Formats: sequence, structure tokens, C-alpha cells
Amino acid sequence: MTNGDPGRMTELVREMLGRHGMLVTLGARLLRASPGEVEIELPASPHISQQNGFVHAGAVSAIADSAAGAAAWTMMPQGSDVLTVEFKINLVAPAAGERLVASARVIKAGRTLTLTEADVHAFTGESKKLVAHLVATMITMAPGVESRSPVR
Amino acid sequence: MTNGDPGRMTELVREMLGRHGMLVTLGARLLRASPGEVEIELPASPHISQQNGFVHAGAVSAIADSAAGAAAWTMMPQGSDVLTVEFKINLVAPAAGERLVASARVIKAGRTLTLTEADVHAFTGESKKLVAHLVATMITMAPGVESRSPVR
Amino acid sequence: MTNGDPGRMTELVREMLGRHGMLVTLGARLLRASPGEVEIELPASPHISQQNGFVHAGAVSAIADSAAGAAAWTMMPQGSDVLTVEFKINLVAPAAGERLVASARVIKAGRTLTLTEADVHAFTGESKKLVAHLVATMITMAPGVESRSPVR
Amino acid sequence: MTNGDPGRMTELVREMLGRHGMLVTLGARLLRASPGEVEIELPASPHISQQNGFVHAGAVSAIADSAAGAAAWTMMPQGSDVLTVEFKINLVAPAAGERLVASARVIKAGRTLTLTEADVHAFTGESKKLVAHLVATMITMAPGVESRSPVR
Repeated sequence: MTNGDPGRMTELVREMLGRHGMLVTLGARLLRASPGEVEIELPASPHISQQNGFVHAGAVSAIADSAAGAAAWTMMPQGSDVLTVEFKINLVAPAAGERLVASARVIKAGRTLTLTEADVHAFTGESKKLVAHLVATMITMAPGVESRSPVR
Repeated sequence: MTNGDPGRMTELVREMLGRHGMLVTLGARLLRASPGEVEIELPASPHISQQNGFVHAGAVSAIADSAAGAAAWTMMPQGSDVLTVEFKINLVAPAAGERLVASARVIKAGRTLTLTEADVHAFTGESKKLVAHLVATMITMAPGVESRSPVR
Repeated sequence: MTNGDPGRMTELVREMLGRHGMLVTLGARLLRASPGEVEIELPASPHISQQNGFVHAGAVSAIADSAAGAAAWTMMPQGSDVLTVEFKINLVAPAAGERLVASARVIKAGRTLTLTEADVHAFTGESKKLVAHLVATMITMAPGVESRSPVR
Repeated sequence: MTNGDPGRMTELVREMLGRHGMLVTLGARLLRASPGEVEIELPASPHISQQNGFVHAGAVSAIADSAAGAAAWTMMPQGSDVLTVEFKINLVAPAAGERLVASARVIKAGRTLTLTEADVHAFTGESKKLVAHLVATMITMAPGVESRSPVR
């Protein structure tokens, strides 16, 4: 049994992400979840901008990392929690548009570590443009392990 | 002449970062700026948390990336703007504490690209703990160049 | 016109990679080149091992980076040269097998910077396993620019 | 007790690195080892070059990664082995010079994962220039654990 077992998966991912005060603050929402794949949407807005009015790299990173973490989580043993070990993000174009969508998938699910990637596209009307690419390593926190423990 | 020339540097960095709606939303503020070095502080708060109550990796990244970008900016020719090309962040401990401080410095300032790094520490009372380490590549946008142009 | 224009592309990539003393030393060879995609093969051997007998991360990186650089090069203006700005590699399994194949492709080709990725698989008989994933930023060196100049 | 306990540490690191066929092939050698810090030297040579005659990014990466892995290893429990989980390298200048030196140190030693960094400098006569900066995550393989096991 994994966290992503059928039935209530989307609901469970939504509940998990709903506990991210950060995503609520940004205005992000879950679009879609399936085993190993999660999409999160973020409307562009001045409250998440950088100095030129584009969406701030920190906000782009936040949705990409959250989508990647959730994608990893769906493949972990039931009851496990997930933490980000590291991620790298390439910002290939200014994040300008009406909304951003981060689409994450698992590259390799391991017992301890899971490798994930996410593309972030900006949408303006019908047009779609790649603005960022993230690769992240996630760690499985076994059920019952106190998540504040210095596992790393 | 660089953006970090004496006199009004801290004021200029504060003004530049003040145009980051994202930092205002997070509750971050500039602590200190000198040529090639910038520190940004972020009080911990539920509105920037992840699912376990730690500060979200996206918020940690946002202050680390902003401090690194501002540090690079201080060494660029006067009137230049700065954009993040890519960054990598290692989250070495849960971001738990009363406040976070991102301390960034320039590793190598180049004509086009500048390499920077930032440490993020969590402070609780008198104790201080490293929670994240970022390395970022910044690109110089020459004065007069329309910053929306597809330079990358 | 790009470096990857038809006719002699594979030959040109082979010639370019043939000037990499490093690849000759490792025993690597070009498998395939098309616009934006390059594959390089490396037989496993004790002279490129690490302490446990797996292929050394440096050798895995060398073929992944070379394939990614060559893939970027095929999409650059004719006569341009390519240099690696940065890369990140995740080693998801020990590089054990008879031979490795690095398969690279361009994610986004820009005027100055090009983002690429590469997967490295280990082959043993008929079986195939992902051992590493690389993401790299390449920079275009315009024709006629002295490649030793401090462009970065 | 750690791998880096006094007495024979330099000898033990040299012995461990001596089992890296890759380093022998490149012509690299250990300069110095102390708890949490390791330096490796690599003479420049055509057999490790890229297309412009600079030292290949793969060779630069190999010594930086090996130094970082060895630095992490000195702080691991006695008998443990080390594997690289991921690294990111920024190549800030062409690797041109008579010899390269990779100087690595541990940023944070954890129970499972250890974060490290390394600078690579090129030396020509008396002059010294930074050519690369690496950040790497290492994993501890406990003594007795079969190192081919799919821990990751």
C-alpha cells in the first residue's frame, strides 16, 4: 500500500498540500494527482512578484518543489511523510503570464530517496511557454518517525 | 561605477528588494548590504509553512535567492538589472525556529554571469543552526536592455 | 544555419568529440547524433572505476556532460563553440554493468544559454537500468570569439 | 570512532582513493587530508582535455567529487563507505593552467546524508585562479551493508 493508492488519492494530496500555509499564501491550488504525477497551478499576481513584475523565483520554486514532493509522496509506503533533500531549478524565461502550472513526475522511486522533476509553464490565453525546470531529491520519513528528528 | 557604490547602497538594495511583492508577502526584510554581501531576515510564521509546520522550502529558497541576487547586483555596472539563471538548494535540516537569516555572498563576478552562494540559518533564542545552503548563477541585464527580452 | 545542419552532422559531432582527449582516455564513443539529441557510449572498465568497482561518478559525468554539450552545439549558429556553465547530476544507482549510454537532449535553446538534460543507463546483456540524470546549462561561444576570453 | 581518526588518516584516504581506477587514469593524487577536509591535485594534460584544450569538465568534476567524497568519508563512523547521491558544479572559468587542485570540506555531516563543497583552482606558476565550485550530497553506507544493495 502506498500513499497514492486509489480511491481517495487526489483528496489526500489536496489535504496534505492544504497544510502548506505557504501554498495558501501564494494562492496555489492542486490541479491533478495520479501515482507519481502531480500538477499545481498558481495565478500570477503582484503579491508574488520580483522587481520586474515577473513571478518571483521563490514562488516558481515553491509550486515546483511542492508538486515534486507530492508526486514522490504518492509512491511512498502508506503513512510515510516526505521532505525535500535538495532541488535545482533552471529559470529559462521570465515567469510572465496569467498563470503558472507546475507539472511534476517521479524519475526514480527508491526506498530512502526519490528523484523527481517538474516543468513550470506560463499560460497567457492559449499560449504556453516553458519558464522553469526543477530536479529534486525527496526523502521518505517512515510512519511513526518523529518528523523533527535530525534524520538528515 | 557599480550598483553597490558607497553612499546609498543599503538604501538602493532595500528599494530594489521592496519591489519584490513576494518578499513583502513573506514578511522578509533586508538586514545588511555591502559590496558582494547581503543578508535578509524572515520571521517564521504559519502563513509560510509546509505540512509539518516548518518554514516551506519555497520560502527558504525565496530569501536565499533574493539575497544572492541582491549580492550579485551590488557588483554589477551601475544601472544593470539582475535575473536568476539557476539555483540549487540543499535543505540540511528542517527550517524550525523563530526566524531565518539568509546570508549571501558573491563567489565570482563575471561580465555576463555571476556565481553566488547563501547560507540560511534558523535562530531560536540564542541558538543558531544551518538549515540550507544555496548556490546560484545570476545574469547581468545591461542598462537600457528591455528586461522582458528573451536574453536567455 | 546551425552546427547541426544535415549532411555531415554526425561526422561533425564525432570530429568535435574526437578533440576531447578525455573521452578517448575513458574509451567513450559517439553512438548517434541528430539536431538537439546526442548519445555517447562508454564500456565499463577498471581504469574508470571508483573504490567499489562501479564506474566513477566523474566518468559518468564526463559522458553525460559531453553528450549534453554536443546536443546543445547542434542547435547553435554555424561555427559557434560550446562551453558548460554548470551541471547537476543525480546518481540514482551504482553504475554497474557492461556499458553505459548517455542520452542527451536540448530542453530549451536560447541565444546565449541552452538548457539540456541527459539520462545515463547501464546495460548488462538485455537489461537496462537508469543510473544517473544530468541537467546542464551550456553557453554559446560566437564564431570568431577567442575561446579563452573570460566570457563568463 | 570515525574513518578520519588520527594516526593513519592520510594513509587510509590515500588507500581508499588508490582504489579509484579513475583517479589513477586521470593522473590525480592526494595532497592532504584532515578530518572533514581533503585536497586532490591533477596535472593538466592533453589526455584529459576537451575540444579547446582546457581540462575536460568531467575530469574537473572527478577530482572535485572524489575530494568531497573523501572529506565526507573522514567524518563517517569507522568502517563505513561513501557514495555520491548528487553533485552540482559551476564552471566559472576555462580550466587552463599547469595543474588543478580540488579543495573539499564538509558543510554538514548528518547520520545518513552529508553535505560537502569543493573549490577547484588552476595554478600556473605562482598565479592561482578559481575555475569551478562543486556542492555534493554524500550518503553513508554502514559497515557490513553490501554496497551493491539498492539503498537509493
